[in-house]
Amino acid sequence: MPGSKQKKPWSGAFKEGIHPLAERFTSSIDFDKRLYRYDIKGSIAHARMLAKCGIISRQEAAALVAGLKDIEADIEAGRFQFDPALEDIHMNIEHRLTEKLGDVGAKLHAGRSRNDQIALDLRLYLRDEIKEVRKRIKTLKRVLARLARKHLGAIMPGYTHLRGAQPVLFSHYLLAYYEMLERDDGRYQDCGQRVDVLPLGAAALAGSTLPLDRGYLAKLLGFRAVTGNSIDTVSDRDFVIEFVADCCLTMMHLSRLCEDLIIFSSPEFGFLRLPEAFLTGSSIMPQKQNPDVLELVRGKTGRSYGALFSLLTMMKGLPLSYNRDMQEDKEPLFDCVDTVKSCLEVLAEILKRIKLEEARMAEAAAQGFLTATDAAEYLVRKGVPFRQAHQIVGRLVRYCMEKKKRLDQLSLEELKHFSPHFDADLIHLLTPSGSAEARSTEGGTAKRRVLEKLDKIGK
Amino acid sequence: MPGSKQKKPWSGAFKEGIHPLAERFTSSIDFDKRLYRYDIKGSIAHARMLAKCGIISRQEAAALVAGLKDIEADIEAGRFQFDPALEDIHMNIEHRLTEKLGDVGAKLHAGRSRNDQIALDLRLYLRDEIKEVRKRIKTLKRVLARLARKHLGAIMPGYTHLRGAQPVLFSHYLLAYYEMLERDDGRYQDCGQRVDVLPLGAAALAGSTLPLDRGYLAKLLGFRAVTGNSIDTVSDRDFVIEFVADCCLTMMHLSRLCEDLIIFSSPEFGFLRLPEAFLTGSSIMPQKQNPDVLELVRGKTGRSYGALFSLLTMMKGLPLSYNRDMQEDKEPLFDCVDTVKSCLEVLAEILKRIKLEEARMAEAAAQGFLTATDAAEYLVRKGVPFRQAHQIVGRLVRYCMEKKKRLDQLSLEELKHFSPHFDADLIHLLTPSGSAEARSTEGGTAKRRVLEKLDKIGK
Amino acid sequence: MPGSKQKKPWSGAFKEGIHPLAERFTSSIDFDKRLYRYDIKGSIAHARMLAKCGIISRQEAAALVAGLKDIEADIEAGRFQFDPALEDIHMNIEHRLTEKLGDVGAKLHAGRSRNDQIALDLRLYLRDEIKEVRKRIKTLKRVLARLARKHLGAIMPGYTHLRGAQPVLFSHYLLAYYEMLERDDGRYQDCGQRVDVLPLGAAALAGSTLPLDRGYLAKLLGFRAVTGNSIDTVSDRDFVIEFVADCCLTMMHLSRLCEDLIIFSSPEFGFLRLPEAFLTGSSIMPQKQNPDVLELVRGKTGRSYGALFSLLTMMKGLPLSYNRDMQEDKEPLFDCVDTVKSCLEVLAEILKRIKLEEARMAEAAAQGFLTATDAAEYLVRKGVPFRQAHQIVGRLVRYCMEKKKRLDQLSLEELKHFSPHFDADLIHLLTPSGSAEARSTEGGTAKRRVLEKLDKIGK
Amino acid sequence: MPGSKQKKPWSGAFKEGIHPLAERFTSSIDFDKRLYRYDIKGSIAHARMLAKCGIISRQEAAALVAGLKDIEADIEAGRFQFDPALEDIHMNIEHRLTEKLGDVGAKLHAGRSRNDQIALDLRLYLRDEIKEVRKRIKTLKRVLARLARKHLGAIMPGYTHLRGAQPVLFSHYLLAYYEMLERDDGRYQDCGQRVDVLPLGAAALAGSTLPLDRGYLAKLLGFRAVTGNSIDTVSDRDFVIEFVADCCLTMMHLSRLCEDLIIFSSPEFGFLRLPEAFLTGSSIMPQKQNPDVLELVRGKTGRSYGALFSLLTMMKGLPLSYNRDMQEDKEPLFDCVDTVKSCLEVLAEILKRIKLEEARMAEAAAQGFLTATDAAEYLVRKGVPFRQAHQIVGRLVRYCMEKKKRLDQLSLEELKHFSPHFDADLIHLLTPSGSAEARSTEGGTAKRRVLEKLDKIGK
Repeated sequence: MPGSKQKKPWSGAFKEGIHPLAERFTSSIDFDKRLYRYDIKGSIAHARMLAKCGIISRQEAAALVAGLKDIEADIEAGRFQFDPALEDIHMNIEHRLTEKLGDVGAKLHAGRSRNDQIALDLRLYLRDEIKEVRKRIKTLKRVLARLARKHLGAIMPGYTHLRGAQPVLFSHYLLAYYEMLERDDGRYQDCGQRVDVLPLGAAALAGSTLPLDRGYLAKLLGFRAVTGNSIDTVSDRDFVIEFVADCCLTMMHLSRLCEDLIIFSSPEFGFLRLPEAFLTGSSIMPQKQNPDVLELVRGKTGRSYGALFSLLTMMKGLPLSYNRDMQEDKEPLFDCVDTVKSCLEVLAEILKRIKLEEARMAEAAAQGFLTATDAAEYLVRKGVPFRQAHQIVGRLVRYCMEKKKRLDQLSLEELKHFSPHFDADLIHLLTPSGSAEARSTEGGTAKRRVLEKLDKIGK
Repeated sequence: MPGSKQKKPWSGAFKEGIHPLAERFTSSIDFDKRLYRYDIKGSIAHARMLAKCGIISRQEAAALVAGLKDIEADIEAGRFQFDPALEDIHMNIEHRLTEKLGDVGAKLHAGRSRNDQIALDLRLYLRDEIKEVRKRIKTLKRVLARLARKHLGAIMPGYTHLRGAQPVLFSHYLLAYYEMLERDDGRYQDCGQRVDVLPLGAAALAGSTLPLDRGYLAKLLGFRAVTGNSIDTVSDRDFVIEFVADCCLTMMHLSRLCEDLIIFSSPEFGFLRLPEAFLTGSSIMPQKQNPDVLELVRGKTGRSYGALFSLLTMMKGLPLSYNRDMQEDKEPLFDCVDTVKSCLEVLAEILKRIKLEEARMAEAAAQGFLTATDAAEYLVRKGVPFRQAHQIVGRLVRYCMEKKKRLDQLSLEELKHFSPHFDADLIHLLTPSGSAEARSTEGGTAKRRVLEKLDKIGK
Repeated sequence: MPGSKQKKPWSGAFKEGIHPLAERFTSSIDFDKRLYRYDIKGSIAHARMLAKCGIISRQEAAALVAGLKDIEADIEAGRFQFDPALEDIHMNIEHRLTEKLGDVGAKLHAGRSRNDQIALDLRLYLRDEIKEVRKRIKTLKRVLARLARKHLGAIMPGYTHLRGAQPVLFSHYLLAYYEMLERDDGRYQDCGQRVDVLPLGAAALAGSTLPLDRGYLAKLLGFRAVTGNSIDTVSDRDFVIEFVADCCLTMMHLSRLCEDLIIFSSPEFGFLRLPEAFLTGSSIMPQKQNPDVLELVRGKTGRSYGALFSLLTMMKGLPLSYNRDMQEDKEPLFDCVDTVKSCLEVLAEILKRIKLEEARMAEAAAQGFLTATDAAEYLVRKGVPFRQAHQIVGRLVRYCMEKKKRLDQLSLEELKHFSPHFDADLIHLLTPSGSAEARSTEGGTAKRRVLEKLDKIGK
Repeated sequence: MPGSKQKKPWSGAFKEGIHPLAERFTSSIDFDKRLYRYDIKGSIAHARMLAKCGIISRQEAAALVAGLKDIEADIEAGRFQFDPALEDIHMNIEHRLTEKLGDVGAKLHAGRSRNDQIALDLRLYLRDEIKEVRKRIKTLKRVLARLARKHLGAIMPGYTHLRGAQPVLFSHYLLAYYEMLERDDGRYQDCGQRVDVLPLGAAALAGSTLPLDRGYLAKLLGFRAVTGNSIDTVSDRDFVIEFVADCCLTMMHLSRLCEDLIIFSSPEFGFLRLPEAFLTGSSIMPQKQNPDVLELVRGKTGRSYGALFSLLTMMKGLPLSYNRDMQEDKEPLFDCVDTVKSCLEVLAEILKRIKLEEARMAEAAAQGFLTATDAAEYLVRKGVPFRQAHQIVGRLVRYCMEKKKRLDQLSLEELKHFSPHFDADLIHLLTPSGSAEARSTEGGTAKRRVLEKLDKIGK
C-alpha cells in the first residue's frame, strides 16, 4: 500500500512515501482539531503581518483572511473533512486553503514553522481556557459565600483527624474552601501572565530570515509581550505544565470538599442532605441514593495528577529544541481543562442545593468535649500556665468520660475539684455557641469575624 | 429541563429525576461502550446460569441469549443507538433487550449488580488484551533475534554513561532488549493469572440470596477460579493497576530503545539509518528527515506513567467497597492498552527496516581506548593485582591521549615501558574484535555466547 | 583545595583530582552503606570463585574472606570509618581490605565492575527484604483471620459509596483485606523470582576476559539462575521498580483499611474503638485522642507512590547501558522497604487491640433499608422479573422513608399493597441477620461461607 | 514495656501510655529538628506577642526569649539532646524550656497549637529557602550569560528531533536556558508571595479565645499578611506543593541541559569538553572519564517528581482540617530544597569550566543541509509561494544527498536547474554563518539580536 507522499508538504527530499502505520501513529488531527479556532486566528494575524512587512501583497492577505474565515465557518458547520494523512490541524487547514486559493494559499506558511505555530495555538487556547476556569472558580466562590451567609448561625464540630476538635460555624468551615479557591485563582492568574506571550516568529527554532514584525503580531493577537529566545520558544511547554499543576491543586481541594460532603451527608453523620437530583441509584439495591457525582469529582483528581505526571515525564531529559515527544502535550492538557471546568461547575450546582440538618450538627458539636480547650484557656486567663491548664482539663475530660457527662453538665463543685480557679462564668464558655463566639482572633470562627470576611467578599 | 428519571432502572425510591448536568457528568457510555462484546458475553453466561439454577426457564434463557446476540450484531453493524441517559454499557444493552423481549429482558439482572458486572467485563477485556500485548511482544522479540542473527559480525562501542566502554557485538546489544521484553512477558503472564478469576456472583458486595452457581459461570466463561470474598471482589482494581504498572515497564524499555536509536541514527553517530518510510519532514525545513515515530514512542512513556498514577491516586484511601471514583479506571486502562500495543507494533516494523553502517560502528569501537580493560585483565593473568593493573593501564591511556595514539598502535617497547608483563600476544586483544571475542563469560558478548543464546531462542 | 585524587581507584588516566563539590555530589556512601552485608557476602563469593578458577590462589582467597569478615565485624561494631572520598560502599570496603592485606586486597576486583557489583548487592538485599515483607503480610493476615473468627456473629452495614448497602458480617468485611494481602503476597513472590538471578560476571557491561564461573557464583550465593545478557544485566532496574510497584498496591490497600478504621472509629459511626496506646493527643485540646498512626499509614501511601514515580522517571529514556542516574535507585527503594514493613507491623498491632461496638454496628445495619434487595430477590423467586421487582421495592422504600418506618416494621397488609407476592415469610429476610444469612453464594457473606473460608485459612 | 506517658504534654485524658511502636512510628524529630531555628524564631515572637497582649508578663516574656535563645545556642553547638519520646521539634524545645524555666516555660504554648506552629515553621523555612534557590538561579543565569558573551562567535547546529535543523550561535543556544531559569525565578517569586503569610493565631483550627494580636506577630516575623481563615490555615499545604512543583520544572530544565551536555561532550559529537575535575572514572575500565555529575542531576529529576507526587497523593481526599497524614510533607520538601540547590550549584561550576571545540561545532553546522530553509526563504523573497519553494529546495537537497555535495558547494548552474530565481547572492546565505546572521527577527539567532539580549541582561 502506497503511503500518502503526495499530501505531505515536506515530501521534497523524500524518495519513499510514508508507511501507513507511521502515518496513523504520528497523526494528531483527531485531537488537535480542537484548536482550529486558534489556528485560524493565528493564521489570520500571520497573513496580515506578512502583508504589513511586504512579504505578500495586501490583496493576497485579504484573500487569505477570507479563505481562513470560510474554513472556520465550514468547520463550525460540520462541513469540513479532516484527513489524517494531512497529519494535523495546521496542515489540514493550509491544504484546504491552497485548494481554495491556489498559489496564494501556498504563501501563508512563509516565515513560520509548525513548531512556533503550535506553540501559538496552545497559548491562545490556554489563555481563553484560563479565563473560563477562573470564571467557574468565581461562581463556586460566590456559591460558598452565599451559603455561608445563609447559614450564619449554624454550629458544627470542627474536625481535626476526623475527630471533633472545637465547635465552629458551618459558615467558617465553608469559607476555608473559599480561601483555597482564592489561592487557586491567584495561581491561574500568575500562570496566565506566563501564557500571554507571543511565540510566533521563532519559526523552526532560530527565527526567520524574512523581515517579520513580531511586535505587530503581538498587537494583533493581544499578547502582552513576545518571547525572548527563539530556541526556547519552540522547546518550551512550561506554561502547559504550570497550568496542569495548578489544576492538580484545585482538584485536590475539590477532592477534600467531596470527601467532607460524602462523610457529612452519610446517615451516620447526618449533617446535611445532598440534592436528590444529583444522586443516583443502584441497579440492584432499590433503596440506594448515592453521591456518585461527588465520588467522581474525587476520583477525577487522579486524572489531573496523571496528566501532570504524563507531561513532566514527557519533557524529562529531552534535548533542545523541539522533539516530537511534545505532541503528547495536548491530550492531557485538554482533558485537564475539561475536568476542572466540569468539576467546578457541578459542585457549584450541588452546593446551591444542599440542605443542612442544623440540629444534628449542633448536637454533634455538643458531644465529645469540644470545648475543653476553652476551659484550659479560661485557666490561662486566671494565670495558670497553659501546660498545666491542659493537664487539669485533660483529667477533667477523663472524669467526664467515666461519668458519661458532658463538660457543660458538670456542677461547679465538680469543676472546683479540678481547679479552684473554675468559676460560674465558665459554664457558658463550655457550650458550643459560647465557645465558637469566643474564638474571635483575626481569621477565627467567631460570628463577627465571619461576617467581617463575608462583608469583605461582598454580596 | 426535566431529568430522564423514566429511563433509570433505579428510580423507584426517587421523587425527582436526575439533573441533566449530573446525568452528563456521570455517564460513562462514551468510553465503556468499548466493552460491549464482553458485557454481552458475560450476560449470555449469566442467563444460562440463571436457567441452570432454575431462576429463569430454559426458554427465557434461550430468548435472552438470542436477544443479546442480536444486539451484538447491531452494535457491530453500527445500528445500535447508545444513549447517555442510560448511563453505561450495561444499561444500554439491558434497556434494548427489554424493548425487544419485554418481561424476559427484565429478568436478566437477577442476582447481579453493575458492581460485579463491570468487574467481569474488565477482566474479560483485559484477559484478551493481555494476549494481544504478549503477541506483539513475541513479534518484537523475534524481530530483534532475526536482526541479531543477520548482523552477527558487527562490532559497536558498548556504552556506559554514553561514553564508549568496551567493544560489543551489535547482536549482543540487541539481545539486551530481548531480555527486557522477556521479563515484561513474564510479568504480563503473572498478571494474567490474577486477572483470570470470575467476579460475577459477588453481586452488589455481599453475594446473592438467589441460588447462583458461580462455578458453572466460571466454566462457561473459561475462568480458572472464582473470587473468594464478595466485598473484595467489587472493591478491587489491583488487576488493572498491576497491568498498567507492567505497561509502564514495557514503555520504559521502549523509551530506552528509542533513545538509543535516535542517538545512533544521528549524523554525528551515524551507526544506522532509519527507514525513510518511518521518518517525517518539516513544514519549514526542506532537508529534514526526523525520527518522529521513535520520539512519539518515547513521549508516550509519559502517557503510561500518567495512567498508572491516575489509577493509584484514584484508589488511595477509598473506603470499602465500591465507590463511583472507580469508574475512572477505564480510560487510563484503555489508553494504556492502545499505547503499548501500537508502540510495540510500530517499533517492530522500524527495526525490520533499519540499515546498519557497520564500518562506522566498527571505527567508533576502535576509538576511545575501549580495550583498556583487556590490557588490565591481561596483566591480571600475569599475576598483577587488578587494582595495580588498572592504574598501570590508566597511565598508559593518558600517554596515548597525549600522543594521540590508539592502544593497538603502541609499540611493544612503549608498552613494556608501562609494565614488563606486556608481551606481543597483547596486541590482538587490544583490537575491538579481539576484545569482544575474549569476553566469553556466560551472558558475555563473545560471538559463541551470542550464538548460543540465539540458538536457544530458536529461529 | 586539592581533590582527593589519590584515593580514587580510577585515577590513572586523570591529570586533575576531583573537585570537592563533585566529590560530595556523587558520593553515595551515606545511603549505600546500608548494603555492607550484601557487598561483603558478594565479595566473599567472588573471591572464592576467583580461586576456583585459578585467577587467585586459594591462600589469597582465604585471606580475602578473612579480611572481609573482619571488616563486616568492624562495621557491625561501629568501628568502621566510612569516607565520602571513597565514594561508595564498594570502594570503602575494598580500600580498607587493601589497607589490611596489601596486594591481595588489590586482587579482589578482578573480573568485576561496580556495575555488576551494585546489581548483586541490590538483588541480595531485596531478596532478603522480600522475605521480611512477606513475613509481615503473613502476620497481618493471621491477625485479620483471628479477629474474623473472634467476632463471627457481628453484623455491620456493608457499604458502597459510603452508604449502607447490605448487611454483612464484620468477619466477611475483614476477610476482604485478607484477600488483598494474599494478592500482594503473590505479587511479591513473583517479583522475588525475577530478583533471584545472579548479575555478577556481567562486569562493566560486556562480560569478562577472565575465566569466571558464574554458575559457581550462583550456587555459592543461592541464586536460582544467572542473567542472560551482560549489557542488560547492568542496565536493568526492573526488579527494583516492580517491587516498589507491588509496595504501592500494598500501601493502597492499607490506606483503605486506615480510612475505614478512621471512619468506623469516629464517634459519629462508633463501630469500634481503637486502642488508646495507639492514639495520641493534642498539644492544645485536652480532650483529643487521635488516630495518628492510621493517618500516617494513609499518608505514607504518598511516599511509596512518590518512590515509584521517582524510579520510573529516572529510567525513562536512558540510553544503554549503565548511567549514573541509576544511583538514584537506592533511597526510594530503601524508604519503600522501611515504609511497607513498619506500616504492616503497626497495623497488625492495632488490629489485635481494637474493640468492637457490636450493638452500634448492628443498629446501623438495621437502618437505611439495607435489606431492600432481599425483598426484590424474594419477588424474583416468586417469578417477578427483577427489574420490576426493583421498581416495586423502590416505591416501598420511598413509602417507608415518608412514613419513617423500617422495612421490617411494615405490616403484611402494607407490603401486599405493593405486591401481592409478598408473604409472611418475607419478614425474617428483612432483618439484617436474616439477610446476611441468606447471601450464601460462594464468596458471599453468609456465616457458613465465612466459616468455610476461615477453615480453609487454618488457625 | 511502659510507654512514655509522662513525657506527653497531652496525657491528661489518657489512661494508658503510648505503645513504643506507636511512639516510634509517629515521631518526627529525626527530620523536623531541621526546623529548630524557625521554631525558636516563631516562639520568640509568640512570647513577645503574649506579653504585649497581657497574657503573660513582660518579665516572663523576657525569660522565655532568653531561654529560647539559649536552646538555639545549645542546638547549634551540638549540645542539645533530641528525644523521640518528645515527638517533634516543638515539644523537644518546649520541654527543655520548661526544664530550664519551670512554670514560665509552661506558659509559652498559650493560644497556640502545633497545627499552626508547624505551618509557621514551614513558612519561615520556605521563605528563606526560596531566597536561597533564587540566589543560585541568579548565579547560574550569570554563568550562562558570561559563557554566551565569551563564545559569541561560535556557530553550532541548532537541533530539532536531535537532527541538525538550522545553524545557530552557541550563545543563542545557551540563552534558551537563561529564559527557562528566568521563568523559574518568576514562579518562585509568585510562590514566595503565597508563602509569606502568617498562620500563627489559627491555633488548633478555630482561632483562640485569648486576645492574640496576629498583626503584631506578622510584623515581628516580617510577614506581608495574615491568613484569612483559621480552618484553612491548618489544613493548607498548597505552598509546599506549589514550591515543589516549581522545583520539578527547574529540574526538568536542568535534565534537558544535562542531556544536551552529555550528548554534546560525547566523542561522537565532540562539541565541547567537560572539566576533568567534574568527571569520574570506572572501577574496572581504566580509560573512562564519565559525566557522572550531569547524569546524577538528570537522575535527580525523578527525585523531585517523586516528591511532588508524594505530596499530591498525601493531600488527596483528606477531610478538613489538619490530619496527621500531613506530617509526611516535610521529608519530600527538605529533599527537594537540597536537590534543587545542589544541582543548580554544581551545574554553574561545570559550565564555568567547559571548553568548546568551536571548529568541530562549526563543521557539524556545515553538514546536513542546515541552510535549506534559507534557500526556500530566498525564493519567497523572489515571489515564489513558500510551499513551492519548500518543494523545490527539498528536491535540491535530495540531489545533494545523491551527489554527496553540500548546498554551498553547488554551482550556480546546478542551482538554476532547480529554480531560475536562484542567483549568485544566494551562496553566502547557504553558509552557516551567513544563515545565522540572517535570522534577525526579534528573539532570533543573529548576533546583533543575541548581543541586544546580553546587553539587556547586563554584565
